[in-house]
Amino acid sequence: MRIDVLTLFPAMLDGFLSESILGRARERGQVEVAVHNIRDWATDKHRTTDDRPLGGGAGMVMKCEPIFAAIEAVQTPGCRRIYLTPDGVPFTAARAEALSHESHLVFLSGHYEGIDQRIRDTVIDEELSIGDYVLTNGTLAAAVVIDALARFVPGVLGEEKSLTHESFTRCLLDFPQYTRPATYRGMAAPEVLLSGNHTAIEKWRREQQERKTARLRPDLLSKN
Amino acid sequence: MRIDVLTLFPAMLDGFLSESILGRARERGQVEVAVHNIRDWATDKHRTTDDRPLGGGAGMVMKCEPIFAAIEAVQTPGCRRIYLTPDGVPFTAARAEALSHESHLVFLSGHYEGIDQRIRDTVIDEELSIGDYVLTNGTLAAAVVIDALARFVPGVLGEEKSLTHESFTRCLLDFPQYTRPATYRGMAAPEVLLSGNHTAIEKWRREQQERKTARLRPDLLSKN
Repeated sequence: MRIDVLTLFPAMLDGFLSESILGRARERGQVEVAVHNIRDWATDKHRTTDDRPLGGGAGMVMKCEPIFAAIEAVQTPGCRRIYLTPDGVPFTAARAEALSHESHLVFLSGHYEGIDQRIRDTVIDEELSIGDYVLTNGTLAAAVVIDALARFVPGVLGEEKSLTHESFTRCLLDFPQYTRPATYRGMAAPEVLLSGNHTAIEKWRREQQERKTARLRPDLLSKN
Repeated sequence: MRIDVLTLFPAMLDGFLSESILGRARERGQVEVAVHNIRDWATDKHRTTDDRPLGGGAGMVMKCEPIFAAIEAVQTPGCRRIYLTPDGVPFTAARAEALSHESHLVFLSGHYEGIDQRIRDTVIDEELSIGDYVLTNGTLAAAVVIDALARFVPGVLGEEKSLTHESFTRCLLDFPQYTRPATYRGMAAPEVLLSGNHTAIEKWRREQQERKTARLRPDLLSKN
């Protein structure tokens, strides 16, 4: 899979791209990521990428010209162009899995008051929001989407992690986990986990998932 | 405001902490951020931070000892200790604003199958999820929460951005933005924005917000 990220803050992703599981996936060639500075496509002498909003109001809006040029420079036939924005469609684990099957993704990160609507109307295929909050720019949001979808690319997680038991599989939150020591500072792990009775353990975990989901996220249960 | 982040991947945050608005806020002393490697509190010769789940199952669980020691080393009286996890309470713009008033926040990033439940039961004050998807670890989630709340710390955004008009203020998505040129590649910006009639512009923007929210996020309207 190839991923291009268009941003005004390419260095924000330095640590993310070289560390942890994504760093290893890039070394192994499972995911190829290139980060581009939108300012490189600005053509005036001040390399302007933003201007005041038409109709007035606070803040600045990212201009058409550099972003159209940047997208046209990196896009390929059949690629998917994604704009990260708080007013996009909520990103989910299911969407992460679907995007992991694409061969080329282009992520556009907005900044300031966002980007000129004509960009969104013509050269963007999908608008995603990672949550109901506003970030100083979309670059972290691009990192979140890339991290979540890379987990579904075959071979990326290796043996380290099973995808079958985790939050949002079957629309349930994960069960509580414990590891050794069985008693720590007087706190004992639940006895069933030490019983060796796998049927009882499965039953307990499933009940914990249902109970936690009902308490914290009843909205997820209606999706089952 | 002081922020401590506990993670197995401190370098993931390098770019995020030095770039953009958060980098400036740190230089100005508005937000002080320290990132710590949980492994520094592991005491055995292999510096082990994880072990197999009690009761069996795939993956690894982060152990009590290093995390208890790490939290006890960085916490201060009255600080708020936050664990980032997909099975936490959904993080929102309102929660970002509330957290911006705290004087000391400690963020704990999980990895693998998560952390031992006894940590969550005793030395964590709040569990947050940045969205309904799973990341390879919680470090990016900590960055997202820090970025979103730093915007509300007085002086951090400066003149650059108004907080009064943006998505989730009054539970509405933002209105479409345009900037010069008024016509780009044959696409004209809406005439009302060029009219100079501020009442008409406000009315158009509000209608656009309501229409977009009803189409994309009807769930937000019920919160008004």
